[in-house]
Amino acid sequence: MTINHDQFLSTAAAGMKESAIRRMGAFIAASRDIISFAPGYPAPDTFPWDELSAIAAELLGSREGGVLQYGPTRGYRPLLDTIKAIMEHRGIATKLEDLLVTTGSQQGLDIVARVLLDPGDVILVELPTYVGAISAFRNFQASLVGVPQEADGIDLEALDQTCERLRREGRRVKFLYVVPNFQNPTGLLIGLDKRQRLLEWAERRDVLIVEDDPYRDLYFEDSTTEAEVRPIKADDRNGRVVYLSSFSKTLAPGFRVAWLAAPPALAAKFEMAKQAGDLLTGSLDQRFVHESCRRGVLDRQLPLLRAHYAHKRDVMEQALRRELGTSVTWPKPKGGFFLWLTLAAGLDADAMIPRAVERGVIYVAGEAFYVNGEGHNTLRLSFSAPSPERIEAGVARLALTLRAEPAALATAAAAAGPGAS
Amino acid sequence: MTINHDQFLSTAAAGMKESAIRRMGAFIAASRDIISFAPGYPAPDTFPWDELSAIAAELLGSREGGVLQYGPTRGYRPLLDTIKAIMEHRGIATKLEDLLVTTGSQQGLDIVARVLLDPGDVILVELPTYVGAISAFRNFQASLVGVPQEADGIDLEALDQTCERLRREGRRVKFLYVVPNFQNPTGLLIGLDKRQRLLEWAERRDVLIVEDDPYRDLYFEDSTTEAEVRPIKADDRNGRVVYLSSFSKTLAPGFRVAWLAAPPALAAKFEMAKQAGDLLTGSLDQRFVHESCRRGVLDRQLPLLRAHYAHKRDVMEQALRRELGTSVTWPKPKGGFFLWLTLAAGLDADAMIPRAVERGVIYVAGEAFYVNGEGHNTLRLSFSAPSPERIEAGVARLALTLRAEPAALATAAAAAGPGAS
Repeated sequence: MTINHDQFLSTAAAGMKESAIRRMGAFIAASRDIISFAPGYPAPDTFPWDELSAIAAELLGSREGGVLQYGPTRGYRPLLDTIKAIMEHRGIATKLEDLLVTTGSQQGLDIVARVLLDPGDVILVELPTYVGAISAFRNFQASLVGVPQEADGIDLEALDQTCERLRREGRRVKFLYVVPNFQNPTGLLIGLDKRQRLLEWAERRDVLIVEDDPYRDLYFEDSTTEAEVRPIKADDRNGRVVYLSSFSKTLAPGFRVAWLAAPPALAAKFEMAKQAGDLLTGSLDQRFVHESCRRGVLDRQLPLLRAHYAHKRDVMEQALRRELGTSVTWPKPKGGFFLWLTLAAGLDADAMIPRAVERGVIYVAGEAFYVNGEGHNTLRLSFSAPSPERIEAGVARLALTLRAEPAALATAAAAAGPGAS
Repeated sequence: MTINHDQFLSTAAAGMKESAIRRMGAFIAASRDIISFAPGYPAPDTFPWDELSAIAAELLGSREGGVLQYGPTRGYRPLLDTIKAIMEHRGIATKLEDLLVTTGSQQGLDIVARVLLDPGDVILVELPTYVGAISAFRNFQASLVGVPQEADGIDLEALDQTCERLRREGRRVKFLYVVPNFQNPTGLLIGLDKRQRLLEWAERRDVLIVEDDPYRDLYFEDSTTEAEVRPIKADDRNGRVVYLSSFSKTLAPGFRVAWLAAPPALAAKFEMAKQAGDLLTGSLDQRFVHESCRRGVLDRQLPLLRAHYAHKRDVMEQALRRELGTSVTWPKPKGGFFLWLTLAAGLDADAMIPRAVERGVIYVAGEAFYVNGEGHNTLRLSFSAPSPERIEAGVARLALTLRAEPAALATAAAAAGPGAS
């Protein structure tokens, strides 16, 4: 008997879609000479290979069972202690019962969704916002409503009006999801004053804030101080904020080690969700990360990474200015991995992808980051992984592609992009 | 403003419970001299430490970016090819589009639930069944209905009657979940003939089968042949069976590398669910597993592991006979990690736990594995991790505990346990 497998799908599964970024992966795999500005990959030549080799030799040489055994769902205890210290350095006082190690921040987003969302619940997000969060939340059939951003982050007035309008319509607004530091995809930083006001707003409207903070350590020292990346969670006195961060961008993503901090009542539920989700994060991976912290490897990496990515940002900005002049605009990235490009109003970045691939360059079309279907003339460029030479060559290919597009490039780019400058 | 975090919980989260097995972990951590028969941990002294050290040195010495980078959600391509070969050896022909690497089999169960289950959907399970599956399925608000087991596995007649009764009641029966080889918790093996009939039944009733097979390679050569562990999936011509297996019990669980095989239409949805769930399984972990297979490490391990665990099974059975005689019964484990004990009818294994801990031994009370609240006089003993000496000492402590229980031990154990012998 031939089966129609669709009849067995859950409502959630019937609506699942492949992520735009991961779809790009197929493009890259299919073509050899392509310069990829698509996925937000860290630069593998920055990974501390020698130190990790030494750590591996010691961990596996120890023959200590725990290194390869099952372990507690909350996380490897010494790593949790390390994370507690990292959080303190970020201005966030935590107890062990607030913390949970997650299998990458993506799992953090997934279990936040699982624990907080019923179908139809509303999440407020930035326009645009991180596409992995969109997938995680939509998989639990949440309704995502976007709020525009200004140069210093989310528009507070629009946020409050949107929230109140939704409530008048009888909708349940569960939380606001924000990436305050070098947002994926725009690279924007929420101003310090605005962070305070966001927290006050959440208190006043009885909403939670889910603060996703993977790029915090990658502030570029020419344009940002450490004071400016202070998390919203640092001022959270009443358990309003669920905070996520990761070692993926600073140590290596292949370990899949990240964490979240939450009020204990929620953290306990997150732990149960993780227990049924994957039991634990990799034991060896957690020890690699813990040892990298204990030996100072991560601390030594951070200033090098900041300089590395700031330089690549410079190279990309210079190439864009040289190749495309004022026909495109972007907010200057002050940290992180991404540059957010706004094209002339008539252009469609998604439709342009096949022509870009033909010329040997790839990016992520901006509309994937918009929950309201906007952003057709925007795209995200990751400057993190390619070498400076490849960045220059890739921008030249992008410029060739753009110049061949029908809409007149002479037209100044629309000012629709957030914080365009 | 003080927050009541309960108001933010999803319906699913409000019902989440900590797993009984992982709860035992806290007991063990709290007490130093305790012999644990609770979690199904592999024996860490069997891990191939030296070979893994050599693999680590080569992988990290290569400085090949992919070793520590993000990678495809489906899995590391060479590992997928390896899994394809393993499946062939098990009698299952697969294509790459059928396969997905998962972060442990627990993630496999979770994404199966996510893709196949809407709240209220029915899953049929064995009585008793694996507690991690119960958690994964319940987290998606499925309704689990149990079917008794006979000495050669699930009772087919009861299965069909249960399914038909539920359908008459208007319930949607999505799939049957089975662990055919050395079931967790009973250690039972489904007979070959019964496997065929299960598949025919699934065809007839238009139900899927989710076949969870982590212990397949751990058949004890004194009592089971490789022919007897042939998966149900091996005879699946029409895409009825979703098959899960793992490297956790044979290589090491700390890597969190497992896989599933499914009809392509479902596998594509499972991939999307995993994409939003944790993006990918650890890159270095996948390479450790792939290299262990490629170098023949795993193939050399398997006969050693079979002998190792068979010996521990012997030690536990002898100790039980010596210490407890006919006051307890169990089906002889022909493979795997577990021995399933049925006590005298009046005894309550869960209530007895504090007294067992006091005497320095711990197990998992059987009722956690029953979806219908039965099994109070049953318990699961894992013989996999403790040394033979600790197994003997632990059984002596268990016997002391049992002898001190109020109900007369002289009473023969109830025949309620499945396949009791």
